[in-house]
Amino acid sequence: MSDLFVFVNDRFVPASEASLLVSDLAIQRGYGIFDFLKALDNTPVFPDEHLARFLHSARQLRLPVGRSQEQLYDIIVQLIKKNNIPNSGIKLILTGGYSEDGYTLSKPNLVITQSPLQLPAPGAFEKGLKLVSYPHQRQLPDTKSIDYLMAVWLQPYIREKGADDVLYHKDGAISECPRSNFFIVTADDTVATPSENILKGVIRGKVLQLAQKQFKVEERPVSLEETWTAREAFITSTTKHVLPVVQLDGRTIGEGKPGKVSGWLNGELKTFFQSKDL
Amino acid sequence: MSDLFVFVNDRFVPASEASLLVSDLAIQRGYGIFDFLKALDNTPVFPDEHLARFLHSARQLRLPVGRSQEQLYDIIVQLIKKNNIPNSGIKLILTGGYSEDGYTLSKPNLVITQSPLQLPAPGAFEKGLKLVSYPHQRQLPDTKSIDYLMAVWLQPYIREKGADDVLYHKDGAISECPRSNFFIVTADDTVATPSENILKGVIRGKVLQLAQKQFKVEERPVSLEETWTAREAFITSTTKHVLPVVQLDGRTIGEGKPGKVSGWLNGELKTFFQSKDL
Repeated sequence: MSDLFVFVNDRFVPASEASLLVSDLAIQRGYGIFDFLKALDNTPVFPDEHLARFLHSARQLRLPVGRSQEQLYDIIVQLIKKNNIPNSGIKLILTGGYSEDGYTLSKPNLVITQSPLQLPAPGAFEKGLKLVSYPHQRQLPDTKSIDYLMAVWLQPYIREKGADDVLYHKDGAISECPRSNFFIVTADDTVATPSENILKGVIRGKVLQLAQKQFKVEERPVSLEETWTAREAFITSTTKHVLPVVQLDGRTIGEGKPGKVSGWLNGELKTFFQSKDL
Repeated sequence: MSDLFVFVNDRFVPASEASLLVSDLAIQRGYGIFDFLKALDNTPVFPDEHLARFLHSARQLRLPVGRSQEQLYDIIVQLIKKNNIPNSGIKLILTGGYSEDGYTLSKPNLVITQSPLQLPAPGAFEKGLKLVSYPHQRQLPDTKSIDYLMAVWLQPYIREKGADDVLYHKDGAISECPRSNFFIVTADDTVATPSENILKGVIRGKVLQLAQKQFKVEERPVSLEETWTAREAFITSTTKHVLPVVQLDGRTIGEGKPGKVSGWLNGELKTFFQSKDL
């Protein structure tokens, strides 16, 4: 595997040398934020949305970025030039910094990595996803923190249940999957998705915009029960776009195959990405 | 500041070189566990309890340690010899390891650091602590994970409220402070502390043992309301031993000064530590 460049604080270093001291608050206390965007044909996709959210997350966790949105964009463009991976995932991480006492915030460390884009396998849309629900509410949900303790911890549980991913709920009100947003389509073709206690994904926002052209759209509480009896369900994410959910907790959703609304949205997104008008 | 030795995986390195690659799951996903013990006169205190809990936390998060309890103890003894800080805090951290996809567990990284022991300021016992309550439940509470997102995030809130630390509660049932356990003393001299949804501290266990010699002891749910009207309250931790809590949410607890049970326990612990029979 080639040794890609990674940006750490103020310079580009080979990945094999891209490190943080163990006094960093990410290592000491799991304290940090991140964002993840993709680049297609060497062009960052929705950079404004992702970088604005990165700056928002940093403010929420009181981590001074020390760089403007434009400066961050510029670093990403340089990283893309250095690594020459046309289709890639770009991750920005900002940590609590090197802490003398292992508890108090210090000057944040900024890390930006690039890696080949991992897309869903061919046929993933047609196959759809199986989800299992789990009672959990992410901490500080509108902040993209690095806290994925439960998500990583739940991996064997997900496999045991024969599922592809987990859907969090709190007292029966669903919120999101660890790395994607969740939507249902009701019997009257309404596209509904939770609006509270979630991270507002960039593709979630785009799908809401697109859906409004054709369907009734609601951002509101969605219960597990409503999901079990929904006509369609799907998730959205930067790498997955729209992926149908065909099963939740072993119950078939709708006809157990991609529905027409998911299909329409998927087509619209495809057209959108092919237009390169990003 | 001198460059102390840190143990990283298989060798002792100067702190200025003790680092982990940014692909580590602590940095990527806040995934890791730790434990913290003290050494007095170059002797680890309650090493069996701390190391057993470290191994327990590792199992809970499915992180193979690759070392026996005896081997970990041996590394600590070597670290103490190399650094020559007679009274110190020793922290063991085990992370999710270098992950190719930034999500899947890999071979854990083991880090052991030593630093001068930070004890409460002189007069801290007599002054007592002011706490502010906050609705929060730690994730996987019986595991000492590195997830301190809320604890670090709440620091300005604690200061705003004129408090020294935060006491977590869920629906009015208190659990613990971020780095210490919480006890009350009721009107009939019963020492009570929550038994569920907490990390069971080593000093908590010792205090329960000591208290049983003299008082009625209960491990059971404790409500915020009961705490407000308790005759005494105190916290326990490895560095703080017993510290009285004289105020919660602006309400004075008991007479607003260290009570007789806290005093008795503090004296017993002092005798215990001075006996060096650790």
